[in-house]
Amino acid sequence: MDSAYAIDTLFTLFSITLIILMVPGFAMLEAGLVRTKNVSSVLTVNVMIYAVASMAFILVGFHLAFGDFQSTTMSQWAFFMFQMAFVGKAINIMSGGVGERARLLPLTLFTVIMGALIYPTVVNISWGSDWLKDTVFDLNMVDLAGSTVIHSTGGWTLLAAILIIGARKGRYSGNQIRVIPASNIPLVVLGAMLLWIGWFGFNGGSVGSIATKEAADSVALTIFNTNTAGLAGAIVAGALIYLRYKLFDITMILNGALGGLVAVTAAPHLYTMLDAIAVGGIGGALVVFAVPLFDRFRIDDPVGALSVHLINGIWGTLAVGLFASDSANGVTLLGQLKGVGVVAVFVFSISFAIIFLINKVFPFRASDEDQVQGLDVSECGLEAYPEFKRAI
Amino acid sequence: MDSAYAIDTLFTLFSITLIILMVPGFAMLEAGLVRTKNVSSVLTVNVMIYAVASMAFILVGFHLAFGDFQSTTMSQWAFFMFQMAFVGKAINIMSGGVGERARLLPLTLFTVIMGALIYPTVVNISWGSDWLKDTVFDLNMVDLAGSTVIHSTGGWTLLAAILIIGARKGRYSGNQIRVIPASNIPLVVLGAMLLWIGWFGFNGGSVGSIATKEAADSVALTIFNTNTAGLAGAIVAGALIYLRYKLFDITMILNGALGGLVAVTAAPHLYTMLDAIAVGGIGGALVVFAVPLFDRFRIDDPVGALSVHLINGIWGTLAVGLFASDSANGVTLLGQLKGVGVVAVFVFSISFAIIFLINKVFPFRASDEDQVQGLDVSECGLEAYPEFKRAI
Amino acid sequence: MDSAYAIDTLFTLFSITLIILMVPGFAMLEAGLVRTKNVSSVLTVNVMIYAVASMAFILVGFHLAFGDFQSTTMSQWAFFMFQMAFVGKAINIMSGGVGERARLLPLTLFTVIMGALIYPTVVNISWGSDWLKDTVFDLNMVDLAGSTVIHSTGGWTLLAAILIIGARKGRYSGNQIRVIPASNIPLVVLGAMLLWIGWFGFNGGSVGSIATKEAADSVALTIFNTNTAGLAGAIVAGALIYLRYKLFDITMILNGALGGLVAVTAAPHLYTMLDAIAVGGIGGALVVFAVPLFDRFRIDDPVGALSVHLINGIWGTLAVGLFASDSANGVTLLGQLKGVGVVAVFVFSISFAIIFLINKVFPFRASDEDQVQGLDVSECGLEAYPEFKRAI
Repeated sequence: MDSAYAIDTLFTLFSITLIILMVPGFAMLEAGLVRTKNVSSVLTVNVMIYAVASMAFILVGFHLAFGDFQSTTMSQWAFFMFQMAFVGKAINIMSGGVGERARLLPLTLFTVIMGALIYPTVVNISWGSDWLKDTVFDLNMVDLAGSTVIHSTGGWTLLAAILIIGARKGRYSGNQIRVIPASNIPLVVLGAMLLWIGWFGFNGGSVGSIATKEAADSVALTIFNTNTAGLAGAIVAGALIYLRYKLFDITMILNGALGGLVAVTAAPHLYTMLDAIAVGGIGGALVVFAVPLFDRFRIDDPVGALSVHLINGIWGTLAVGLFASDSANGVTLLGQLKGVGVVAVFVFSISFAIIFLINKVFPFRASDEDQVQGLDVSECGLEAYPEFKRAI
Repeated sequence: MDSAYAIDTLFTLFSITLIILMVPGFAMLEAGLVRTKNVSSVLTVNVMIYAVASMAFILVGFHLAFGDFQSTTMSQWAFFMFQMAFVGKAINIMSGGVGERARLLPLTLFTVIMGALIYPTVVNISWGSDWLKDTVFDLNMVDLAGSTVIHSTGGWTLLAAILIIGARKGRYSGNQIRVIPASNIPLVVLGAMLLWIGWFGFNGGSVGSIATKEAADSVALTIFNTNTAGLAGAIVAGALIYLRYKLFDITMILNGALGGLVAVTAAPHLYTMLDAIAVGGIGGALVVFAVPLFDRFRIDDPVGALSVHLINGIWGTLAVGLFASDSANGVTLLGQLKGVGVVAVFVFSISFAIIFLINKVFPFRASDEDQVQGLDVSECGLEAYPEFKRAI
Repeated sequence: MDSAYAIDTLFTLFSITLIILMVPGFAMLEAGLVRTKNVSSVLTVNVMIYAVASMAFILVGFHLAFGDFQSTTMSQWAFFMFQMAFVGKAINIMSGGVGERARLLPLTLFTVIMGALIYPTVVNISWGSDWLKDTVFDLNMVDLAGSTVIHSTGGWTLLAAILIIGARKGRYSGNQIRVIPASNIPLVVLGAMLLWIGWFGFNGGSVGSIATKEAADSVALTIFNTNTAGLAGAIVAGALIYLRYKLFDITMILNGALGGLVAVTAAPHLYTMLDAIAVGGIGGALVVFAVPLFDRFRIDDPVGALSVHLINGIWGTLAVGLFASDSANGVTLLGQLKGVGVVAVFVFSISFAIIFLINKVFPFRASDEDQVQGLDVSECGLEAYPEFKRAI
């Protein structure tokens, strides 16, 4: 008994550590993908989100999500911190996609509301004490580690934000789409790999226990399938790009891997190895097709967050209905679709309303001059690489 | 029994791994904060310290600190390595603050003495077999993971070193203080976040066991409070800087987080969540006020190590007396103050004497020409970024 | 029972995480060591290897190596993934050494064959179900975590590849050896330290269990000795270079550390602390002497992989016969030498044949023009640092 409590506490602390490693993961990925003149700004947003969203969640959000829930199988503090470690991720998804033009002060205000209220509400109806239970909004979707709760939540918020904030200056003019290359590829790779490894804690930890033989098998299968979906996403994205362009595009390969990881996240504990390959591989393909599609609609997303997190958050949640539906676990495609839809409507509308209101008082969009000069100077007062002479 | 031994060994190995992740953490933080011409030198110092201090400690220092102590609750090798993982940190604190002008050979000699003798003596009287017990120097301060033993020890050594070595050439002239910007902000963020995460192992591992329900709760609370103090330090530092300058200064936000982490380190197992917020938040504020103060006194510390580690090492140790003092645990503000004072006098005077002596034979300070050219060329024979054209 | 199963599953998942952290480790190390114009290409190779080799191994290689083996002491999925985490490393060793001139498509094809067939065969005869048992090729060498199985396997493959692919354009002309400096030293340090820490999972996890007192002691000793050998390798390499050049060469210090880590890998569970210092220190010295030696023979290896992995893989395997030979464990120098020799002949000849054949259809070597321009443009279509103006 004591031993199971100790093992599960240690397991959860281990998982927490991996998830928090995603904070530098996201930060490095985004810092590598944007232009050098916006790198400090993007990094500051990432650190701010971790600090502010986590604090908002431990002071307010946790209670909203879980009510009086007490963990009895592991230390309550480990459970509390594990839940806290999730909250920033949904906001990171949003902040990455509005990079290079969104200002820090309104982002900080929105982070408080997202961490204290919006995200905890989604958790409440999906994983938590569920105050909408027994209504028409009763959700019984399977979403182990948040294909919907984290990833499409972040994605819908991002979509709302982009509609209000608009594209980066100079990105679209007439029929032209200006390609803006990533400024630091080693940081992109480092960041993506830290996210990949962090995902083991995210999904593995979400199983909730490792202290019995059955639980240990479930955790190990979960981490195995999580990784396998990432492998498949990378391979499929890389192969599609190579077949089309005869080039190996590392940013697309990594986004394919991340797409596969997002997709498998809803049910890595229920899939076979081949299921995981299929779910992750399709996830990688979706990224390759979605990235140019968003550009066609003038939806400017410098890090590909909508393709990775929104599209694959939806795909991953529906995939449970296709691959792991059976009468024993009660999973149905319709139930999954309902979960996707309820979260979509709730998150998109509330996020849109709040971003719209904040935007009236503290405009999110940096001025054209500030965008041209770079947000590092106007927002942070320091450049990311002041000693390196710029070629462009 | 066997199971508790296995769990605690695994827990300690996990903690060790996190602490050693602080080696690249410190290295990246410092490499990002100094100018490009000194980056290789700073990195070499960090790797040298890990190698040399650890070797000095396992060959000599451990026995000095702990005598014949044998761990019976976990593998002796895990206990040995856990203690070893700490030693470099105190020296890292010192080496960072004398960056951009201290030479490697005398630093290496000092590292041997610090790792073999000075740091182990501090450990001995604080955590170890305590050969000064029952004298007037008997310390009974509470200092779980080293606000004093590690952080202010490193800080006092640094202060002694700066007094002997002096400021970087060109930093102060007349009444002018020349601002020298950090050269690589992504590395600063990466390094600070690795330190933050490494701290979970530092403080969590210092609880010493996770194998019972009570111990597991203590470890989880420790890690929770550690993180919370970091959050609070970041938020307070960021808010103060924003209120003053209307800018988000990421280096100050991160130093605020690190200040909060240093401050909470003395007793994260004894605080409530609100205590941790207060202790860490004050820690963040202290950093913001201390950084310009040291400059006013012409104490040149390129990475802010005195503000983060010395000031908050002292604050954190005293805070235990303010927030966690009660008759049951015997903690008193006076007892904490005595601990701070004894370590201060011992470490400052012995460090000053040894650095002074080494300096007579192998001068620490690089020549003005070498400083202008950068220490990478004169000390390491290689530049950090030879292909990037310099703007300044 | 359940508790031991849970502990060993958690321990193995922890080890897996550390090993996969070596993927960004290798990627950053190599990205830092090559010229900026080849950085994206090198990073893409590293990610490709992780994705493709792992997939080849889980679909084909594992069964070839282990037959129907079922783990009963931990989750089968954890065992499966632990073995999978190894496979990329042997190929990473090869790909690093042919960096800056090897093309991605043939490397990918070779990765499939190495991950599905060559490496699993080596595992089979060394650690696996051993279909050559009771023949003259019966191997009973001790090689806990792969000084031979991983490191010299990768090294022999690399040697075969270099002989076929040749040196980088412009590296050797007449009697001149052109020194090509590393382009990003912080990445080199970050990568090497992630490898170092990842090694704890590699070697510690290879003990196979931590769930009893005896096993816990063995794991902790293994990790302690692994680290100690790295310390010794770094110190010896640094001292030798300093004595010769009066400079601290960080790339050589880190290669010395890695050499020590490779050398100790065959038997960290059998050594005393002083053994580990000797084995690792000699490993560091061997790197210092081997690097110029390979250059003298016009064997162009931009990252020093032959010196680190091949030379020390051999040394480390033989060292078991020198330091840990006794009648109880049946280790003999001759038995170790036989293992080294059988793997050498098998891996070198099969690798040479397959690389030779692939090379006929898809030439490995990039054209001179592509090498001058950099492989990033011709292979990946994107530069690693497009905004930084190049000095050279």
